[in-house]
Amino acid sequence: MSQRVFNFSAGPATLPLPVLEASAAALVDYKGKGVGIAEVSHRGAEFKEVLAETEQRCRQLMGISDDYAVLFLQGGATQQFDLVPMNLLQNRAQYIVSGQWAKKAAAAAKAHGSTEVIADSQDQQFSVLPSGYTVDPQADYLHICSNNTIFGTRFSAFPDHPCLVADMSSEIMGRVIDVNRFGVIYAGAQKNLGPSGVVLVIIRRDLLDKAPDTLSPIFRYKAHADNESCLNTPPTFGIYVLLETFRWLEAQGGIAAVEQVNEAKAALLYEAIDGSGGFYTGTVTDHPNRSRMNVTYVLPNEDLTTAFLKRAAAEGLVALKGYRSVGGIRASIYNAMPMAGVEKLVALMKDFQASA
Amino acid sequence: MSQRVFNFSAGPATLPLPVLEASAAALVDYKGKGVGIAEVSHRGAEFKEVLAETEQRCRQLMGISDDYAVLFLQGGATQQFDLVPMNLLQNRAQYIVSGQWAKKAAAAAKAHGSTEVIADSQDQQFSVLPSGYTVDPQADYLHICSNNTIFGTRFSAFPDHPCLVADMSSEIMGRVIDVNRFGVIYAGAQKNLGPSGVVLVIIRRDLLDKAPDTLSPIFRYKAHADNESCLNTPPTFGIYVLLETFRWLEAQGGIAAVEQVNEAKAALLYEAIDGSGGFYTGTVTDHPNRSRMNVTYVLPNEDLTTAFLKRAAAEGLVALKGYRSVGGIRASIYNAMPMAGVEKLVALMKDFQASA
Repeated sequence: MSQRVFNFSAGPATLPLPVLEASAAALVDYKGKGVGIAEVSHRGAEFKEVLAETEQRCRQLMGISDDYAVLFLQGGATQQFDLVPMNLLQNRAQYIVSGQWAKKAAAAAKAHGSTEVIADSQDQQFSVLPSGYTVDPQADYLHICSNNTIFGTRFSAFPDHPCLVADMSSEIMGRVIDVNRFGVIYAGAQKNLGPSGVVLVIIRRDLLDKAPDTLSPIFRYKAHADNESCLNTPPTFGIYVLLETFRWLEAQGGIAAVEQVNEAKAALLYEAIDGSGGFYTGTVTDHPNRSRMNVTYVLPNEDLTTAFLKRAAAEGLVALKGYRSVGGIRASIYNAMPMAGVEKLVALMKDFQASA
Repeated sequence: MSQRVFNFSAGPATLPLPVLEASAAALVDYKGKGVGIAEVSHRGAEFKEVLAETEQRCRQLMGISDDYAVLFLQGGATQQFDLVPMNLLQNRAQYIVSGQWAKKAAAAAKAHGSTEVIADSQDQQFSVLPSGYTVDPQADYLHICSNNTIFGTRFSAFPDHPCLVADMSSEIMGRVIDVNRFGVIYAGAQKNLGPSGVVLVIIRRDLLDKAPDTLSPIFRYKAHADNESCLNTPPTFGIYVLLETFRWLEAQGGIAAVEQVNEAKAALLYEAIDGSGGFYTGTVTDHPNRSRMNVTYVLPNEDLTTAFLKRAAAEGLVALKGYRSVGGIRASIYNAMPMAGVEKLVALMKDFQASA
């Protein structure tokens, strides 16, 4: 096998090597049964055991009570942009637009009913979290995107709403949260949990009955909850990878322990940016709400950016190029990125600046 | 590694060992890049190359012209039960109900417009293909399920319609078909193509514009076609497994060669059933339309069935239990089931009968 690189991809993103190795082994042969885990019925004993353990570990890691259903669905967070209003929007919903994904979620909801964007930081190129908004607890729900993958902000504190709905794709299980503050949490797996093609949905059970009777079962949370994620064939192998990730997270000491490392990784990188005397400039001005998962910054010009990316790749630091509308550098440092990767990046940044 | 068993699961189903091994290797490390194929951006060079080759091989294997878009989506065939009418049903659609999945497809469509079931063989427990129906070429489309996984029938010949829509989940790439006879072909991957969580959709391009303007992009075939299956993050690893399956199919000589083996496998098994003097009874009376993929039969009583399944498992022949509503035995013999597996099953059947 070749040497692993440090992969800063925003998603699909790096996964822990032990997770990949265990998943690869199970793909070929599950527990010595002479059959791989992707080759067995989703209604058979082997996969039922996988699904039950995956849900149980998810509940334990995040402290999810029985008041919530935990679902493993398909279609990514993008499909949730529609399913949330299709299931929950009866009168009016509120959206906070803190970045591109939040904006897409708000746009998708319009087709399904009355929506209101109560705050939007697009004017400031999403370099800050929007503020100064008034939440209406009478709205069916308030939707946020908790961490902004593209522009590098996060909600360090969450707004209050009786039904707070959060797209947590890019920080799920990267920080400790109180699930009880949320009505719905959803997250595409491909940043912190596993391969793309699985979306985790955590939904308070009282919300399951809000959907109109005309909604098809495949789009209805209640149908998925009643069938324990097996209304149709779920993405079985993807769910298996999640199980291995949950085992790995537990072995790291759980989410609180991982969050400490994440805080330290982000602090090291932001210190390097802020301490560079302006050579590196963070794109987020709202420091308390800087993302701990996606660290975005720019160099003085395009030539230097190109040279930096080239040298980084040569040193085994890959996928650092910023999103096309932001430019510069984006270092995605999800749970699976070890401190060593961030240390190597910071060392490169200092060395590159000295020689520039 | 343990010895591989012969896995007759109806789906998720057995996959070729070389496909599993190559996919497992790529999961850990793709082409020596120090990063696995599930860990790279769907918009980056590595996955773009995978997606392009997957589509190109799919087109070549099935003889798909540029008049058709080839999409790799999520949500399984079940979600297609809704997406087909959401995209194509303007006035009226016709359905042939030849089994449980065809019935579910017809039921799902009702929520989206006017539908008509023109033939239904439920009266005969789906033991025959429905006949004696009149196709209306003015209908928006005619929907069929080409192979009946549960009850073991197939359309040996297809009806004609200007827009024939076929759920081919359980026989896709198991037989040569003329794609030009179809408006839409869709197939969940988990029988003949790869892991669950990917659905292949082949759609004639003139149909892409039929969807109402109000339909959200995530549910709209045209949006997926315009974005070449990357409207949102596709199930990248699942698509990679499809690529390995397509390479394997090519190495077998393509679909025509595989179909010959499939015909021989099915013939051997049906001969064993029909030649058993009534000890084994095929559940399908419509012999010309017997499935080549799912062979269903019963033993004289429940005790013998249980004993047969137990002995089969002891000999490494697993997942042979019939669907709960049919009972008896179901041997799913998709592309990846080698002739040796069917030969071993037939030998067991003869031996079991002799000793019963």
